[in-house]
Amino acid sequence: MTPEFALIEKFFKRPSQRATLGVGDDCALLAVGAGCDLAVSTDTLVEGTHFFPGANPKWLGHKALAVNLSDLAAMGATPRAVLLALTMPRNDEDWLATFSQGFFALAERFSVELIGGDTTRGPLSMTLTVLGETPTGRAITRGGAKEGDDLWVSGELGAAALALAHLRSGVDLDAEDFNAVEARLHRPEPRLDLGVALRGIATAMIDISDGLVADVGHLGERSQLGVSIDWDQVPMPSALRKQPLSTQHHCALAGGDDYELAFCVPASLRDTMASVASMMRDVPLTRVGVMRAGHGVEVTCSGAPLPLATGGFDHFSATSSPSSL
Amino acid sequence: MTPEFALIEKFFKRPSQRATLGVGDDCALLAVGAGCDLAVSTDTLVEGTHFFPGANPKWLGHKALAVNLSDLAAMGATPRAVLLALTMPRNDEDWLATFSQGFFALAERFSVELIGGDTTRGPLSMTLTVLGETPTGRAITRGGAKEGDDLWVSGELGAAALALAHLRSGVDLDAEDFNAVEARLHRPEPRLDLGVALRGIATAMIDISDGLVADVGHLGERSQLGVSIDWDQVPMPSALRKQPLSTQHHCALAGGDDYELAFCVPASLRDTMASVASMMRDVPLTRVGVMRAGHGVEVTCSGAPLPLATGGFDHFSATSSPSSL
Repeated sequence: MTPEFALIEKFFKRPSQRATLGVGDDCALLAVGAGCDLAVSTDTLVEGTHFFPGANPKWLGHKALAVNLSDLAAMGATPRAVLLALTMPRNDEDWLATFSQGFFALAERFSVELIGGDTTRGPLSMTLTVLGETPTGRAITRGGAKEGDDLWVSGELGAAALALAHLRSGVDLDAEDFNAVEARLHRPEPRLDLGVALRGIATAMIDISDGLVADVGHLGERSQLGVSIDWDQVPMPSALRKQPLSTQHHCALAGGDDYELAFCVPASLRDTMASVASMMRDVPLTRVGVMRAGHGVEVTCSGAPLPLATGGFDHFSATSSPSSL
Repeated sequence: MTPEFALIEKFFKRPSQRATLGVGDDCALLAVGAGCDLAVSTDTLVEGTHFFPGANPKWLGHKALAVNLSDLAAMGATPRAVLLALTMPRNDEDWLATFSQGFFALAERFSVELIGGDTTRGPLSMTLTVLGETPTGRAITRGGAKEGDDLWVSGELGAAALALAHLRSGVDLDAEDFNAVEARLHRPEPRLDLGVALRGIATAMIDISDGLVADVGHLGERSQLGVSIDWDQVPMPSALRKQPLSTQHHCALAGGDDYELAFCVPASLRDTMASVASMMRDVPLTRVGVMRAGHGVEVTCSGAPLPLATGGFDHFSATSSPSSL
């Protein structure tokens, strides 16, 4: 078998770009830009919990990086670098080659440099740590929303959850509809350009990984506000609109894994938001609610409250099972 | 069960110290000091590969952090912060409470702040990412050694490997001797103060995690030099000196997990090294060899070459098994 060091060299070592020192020493070295804070986040994907055994390694390489970059997007950070800690049961070169293809295709698209990592033997999982920069004091946290701010979301919600529901055989989808939603499950797109564009505009932001209600709930808690969502405004893919209302509610309100952004913007900036929206072209931006005094998340449909029995995805709940791929 | 978020709050959230933003948002934010590079490293410990099932969680909390901090020590970096991605099969609060005790006891001793992380469900493993600072251009890499530089090591070598050999029942040790060596296996000490003290003195440095021969081999490769080690100078614990020579060779030359530092210093700085050594008091510093033209590592005993059949610990080798705890 290839020793650990040769493995790293073979699949993951690329020439250093902006990093002072990349893969191959005890640490990587990175110069953080003057006037910038470092933004850093780490996320793990585990076989059997976050993806099915036998998942396509190319998609997995993409998704593992995408969900981490989504955390940078949610701070309005510019991505810089990533570290990859990969645990796998045996040295499978075909798997590694395909995984690294998916990983680097996304990394290169956003100029994210792989600067370090670790490979170990054990049950398949991967922990990525992403590093980005935000101008000092201008990161968009979860806690800055003000009463009366509009609540916006990017893209459409519920596609990933619908694809997953189909794969688990609970929900019937024709091939065309499945194709339309599965990309969101397998190859989510981190909204990095949008995150940066919202600096100085959004007062609070989060990425939707656990479901809209759960995640805007975090915005509300941190900002010490309640959140009202207008169900009629929640953007959904057409494949989901064909489903029974209970499936729509489940997928669009409680379905995780879309990795869209939810963010708060003062109502006085709706013209500015129109400009941002036209700049984003492929990514629709939709006003879905408002931050209000109080606490908790309420969803109304034509003015009447919708009963919510839907929590986010809890990684330790007894019922949790593979959420994606 | 406690939801993921409550879990993090309960065991791992502490008030932010120097971090701009700690646990609880999409990213943590950190201001890197002016005139400093960020040094960053990630390492995974997997149950069954790096520690035995049922390992003491307090020691594990210490060790997971210690082996990561050791990478910062090996760059001469000052530690700042850490992210902890913890994967566990179920929400075991007793385990978490004990793990976090070991983790924070070490973190607080070196003023390392936990600024982020992730908890997921799956086979027990943990990936830590440590962040530190080095004055720009003064990090001590593996590649700076010059021909004729002395090779030094900190502490004693082979203790962790001897303790492990005893636990696997291959090697007989009385209780007193086992006590003397097991601390190095279970609670290694990152040589952070020494790393910083060697800035401007050491030309190259690495921490000994895979064994002396394998790791100084990396120093040699990166510096494009060969390495000569004088076996008679290799510092060993007295418990190891009582063992047969083959055990001594195996433990002190190929045994990993001591997390001592190996470093190169120009011979002209031996007086300076005497000062550093007196400053370090509890950590003996020993000159064990020399960097020479050529390549490869040779160990001599009273001038005659020692045959080396000992590689480092390879995480994908067919024979590898739990290396510690």
